[in-house]
Amino acid sequence: MSKVRSDISVSLDGYVAGPNETNENPLGEGGEDLHEWIIELKAWREPHGREGGEENVSTRIVDEANANVGAEIMGRGKFGPAGGGPWGDEPWQGWWGEDPPFHKPVFVLTHHEREPLRLSDTTFTFVTDGIESALAQAREAAGDEDVFLGGGADSINQYLAAGLVDEIEVHVVPVLLGGGKRLFEGVGDLKLEQLRAVEAPGVAHLKYRVVK
Amino acid sequence: MSKVRSDISVSLDGYVAGPNETNENPLGEGGEDLHEWIIELKAWREPHGREGGEENVSTRIVDEANANVGAEIMGRGKFGPAGGGPWGDEPWQGWWGEDPPFHKPVFVLTHHEREPLRLSDTTFTFVTDGIESALAQAREAAGDEDVFLGGGADSINQYLAAGLVDEIEVHVVPVLLGGGKRLFEGVGDLKLEQLRAVEAPGVAHLKYRVVK
Repeated sequence: MSKVRSDISVSLDGYVAGPNETNENPLGEGGEDLHEWIIELKAWREPHGREGGEENVSTRIVDEANANVGAEIMGRGKFGPAGGGPWGDEPWQGWWGEDPPFHKPVFVLTHHEREPLRLSDTTFTFVTDGIESALAQAREAAGDEDVFLGGGADSINQYLAAGLVDEIEVHVVPVLLGGGKRLFEGVGDLKLEQLRAVEAPGVAHLKYRVVK
Repeated sequence: MSKVRSDISVSLDGYVAGPNETNENPLGEGGEDLHEWIIELKAWREPHGREGGEENVSTRIVDEANANVGAEIMGRGKFGPAGGGPWGDEPWQGWWGEDPPFHKPVFVLTHHEREPLRLSDTTFTFVTDGIESALAQAREAAGDEDVFLGGGADSINQYLAAGLVDEIEVHVVPVLLGGGKRLFEGVGDLKLEQLRAVEAPGVAHLKYRVVK
């Protein structure tokens, strides 16, 4: 059966974004440092339309994470803009320009209704009736493939707390942010099993299964 | 030159002890779960006077951590009893009985003066004039060997914040404690370099160097 899974970069002190998120600095202060390891990779640069990049141990981790994903669910914070709120007359189109790197159905959790947005081969559907509804829609769209939880921390934590996640991989980066959004906050008494730990340049990939 | 180093078991949500520490439950609720991986090891059982135990990938991690240590510094919380405070007329002798497993000079950070306590070949010296003083005494006692910071989180965080730690290894356990004492809290803007990440049964060992 298809899985619900997530993977996300985390600072050594447990944050997935730094303090003070703004439109100029959507990952908060220091948050960019969490993603240096992946931005250097050809496996990330190619789908994001950037040239060059290296291959290392992280390549297979990223390839594996991206494979067999049929739909993504993201929080309003990840879609943006910073601060959220009503969409307004010229609604925000996301951070990614005309050709977002998803290439699949994306379901955005929000409190504010909006018609679906199609940009190239990515369709953003805005879901206002809760995480279970978003998951049901994403499962339907994904078919036999997995549903990926794209973050941020709040939405992943909500799915973890509801017992709806099968696997989560944290990419632990040797950075301390000292504040911001924490993964695993308020998720209650989950039982986890370590599936693997992989050393790679500048990051450690730790993958877990949620025991049900 | 000898190093100041620490290693400590941490829950996936960043706690080194659970909430509500008591004398019956000195590691707080759920805190015992952090140490299952090490308590199963022969490398831990033998020095603690227990029979049996297994050998696995974690064995060399524990052996390496224990090697070349000439003195330990611990917080009052680790020495006990829970709650701290003045020593009283029949002062607490530590959690470890007549033959503590340290076998080396131990320096206990405390606000309450007390004569040194010798139990078998371990001497506990109580230091009331701060972390720099404790480190100076521990370095003197350790000679060419390393000084080990035995925890808990508060004392390790103080040494990290003061820039006095050379290496720290976290043993990440697939457990969520949801509260308790956090490692890396309030340590400021430290620069870390990942030295290694090792997968072992039920734990991931992540070792870092503090860049100075």
